[in-house]
Amino acid sequence: MQPHSLFIITGANRGFGRAIVTAVADAAKHKTTVILVGRNANELENVVQSVKDNVNIDTLLVSDISLETASEAHDTIFVKIKHLIETIQSGYPVLTRAVLVNNAGTTGDLSKKIGEYTAAEIQNYVNVNIASYVTLVSGFVNLLKEKPFDPDQPTPFPPALTIVNISSLLAVKAFPHWGLYATGKAARDMLLSVLAEEESSIRTLSYAPGPLDNEMQASVRATIGNEEQKQVYTDMANKGTLVKMKDSARKLIRLVDKADYRSGAHIDFYDKE
Amino acid sequence: MQPHSLFIITGANRGFGRAIVTAVADAAKHKTTVILVGRNANELENVVQSVKDNVNIDTLLVSDISLETASEAHDTIFVKIKHLIETIQSGYPVLTRAVLVNNAGTTGDLSKKIGEYTAAEIQNYVNVNIASYVTLVSGFVNLLKEKPFDPDQPTPFPPALTIVNISSLLAVKAFPHWGLYATGKAARDMLLSVLAEEESSIRTLSYAPGPLDNEMQASVRATIGNEEQKQVYTDMANKGTLVKMKDSARKLIRLVDKADYRSGAHIDFYDKE
Repeated sequence: MQPHSLFIITGANRGFGRAIVTAVADAAKHKTTVILVGRNANELENVVQSVKDNVNIDTLLVSDISLETASEAHDTIFVKIKHLIETIQSGYPVLTRAVLVNNAGTTGDLSKKIGEYTAAEIQNYVNVNIASYVTLVSGFVNLLKEKPFDPDQPTPFPPALTIVNISSLLAVKAFPHWGLYATGKAARDMLLSVLAEEESSIRTLSYAPGPLDNEMQASVRATIGNEEQKQVYTDMANKGTLVKMKDSARKLIRLVDKADYRSGAHIDFYDKE
Repeated sequence: MQPHSLFIITGANRGFGRAIVTAVADAAKHKTTVILVGRNANELENVVQSVKDNVNIDTLLVSDISLETASEAHDTIFVKIKHLIETIQSGYPVLTRAVLVNNAGTTGDLSKKIGEYTAAEIQNYVNVNIASYVTLVSGFVNLLKEKPFDPDQPTPFPPALTIVNISSLLAVKAFPHWGLYATGKAARDMLLSVLAEEESSIRTLSYAPGPLDNEMQASVRATIGNEEQKQVYTDMANKGTLVKMKDSARKLIRLVDKADYRSGAHIDFYDKE
């Protein structure tokens, strides 16, 4: 059977999401379709242009999305992805592998400690980073997992499924000023740990990419209300020891391709391979 | 200074919340005020009646609450608690200790696996068990934590603060069919771990009460879609080895009173003291 991999990458328009798209394109040795999900259509088009010379890559875009609530994530992202996948499945070669990379997320206001949040920002954070994420993971599993054989509605052999959560050291170690972020990342990790127990045919991975040399990290240094962490990150930036997005994205794709980690695990960029 | 302890207990109208109220009353050796938070005013009144013979206990009720969103939790619970505390603080003796016990929560539909959730039930679960909880913890910290001294607005010496999350083994170990529950409990644990790092004057504790001999456990056995767990819990129920609510609530109050655990820790009923 001719292999055909599908990657669905959220927050693909910039930052680490964009680096993951590049890493997927660089590693593609057979037909690979990438669904890029992001708010900004122009930025997504730029990402598509940057990988278009790879003959193995097909790209599809989902823009104008919203993560404001679970139902918005369902309607603006999941329903569109579902239609795209159904179209892909009706073509040739059929999908042999599908990988969902949940990269989209926000840091919350790092100047604040837990006692300073407003109800509105708590609700927004939880919607964008937990409710929407659970909705996408749930929908993806429902759509693609192995179904009981039905002779009246034969379905193609199901693709091998992998679900990735872009996690963080903060998901497993508490630091001040990361209240909402750490809460969200811990929640996201746990969902995939449970999923690994529920579905032996699905591989799940929570990947902590390290402190990345990108705009989000620059914003962390500019806004975090904790001097010790601000100093650590500033020193790393000055010494050039922040993790390069390209290196971290490559490690992630190597992990996903080799698939020899324990499903449900939390793996950090700094962990030995 | 005459000691005066305040306990705020959510979901106090029944089950483990009610057992916690009883344990607080049984352990009260000095003036203790308990704010009981729950949906059902009649049930709350019954709980009040059951502890009214303890001369050290004063009870205050907050009913008709909603955990549907962060802002509802703020308006229907936090604002009322705030007014009650301000009233208590203007009386005598002033509060020397305040303990928030976040016990309210739901299990979600345990017949389902992660691929079977609807967007609506994901949103509702996240609102009730994460967004509302973060809102209450945040508000409580903001209201009662040590403030910089202001000679124009002298505030009473701040009470010693403890914040408890009623957690679960599921927060730290993944089992099938607990997707939303485990996700929520992991999130709740992490918020208190970060809080412990942020506020050295506040003690936080995530307490896993064990598989309790109560209605919630009966509902778990009746609904869970995993035969192995159903069998384990049914065997425990038949053999009478489920944890008695009274024993678990007493252990919790001993932990809170002794305050010799590491702040931010996750402690299980079965852990050695």
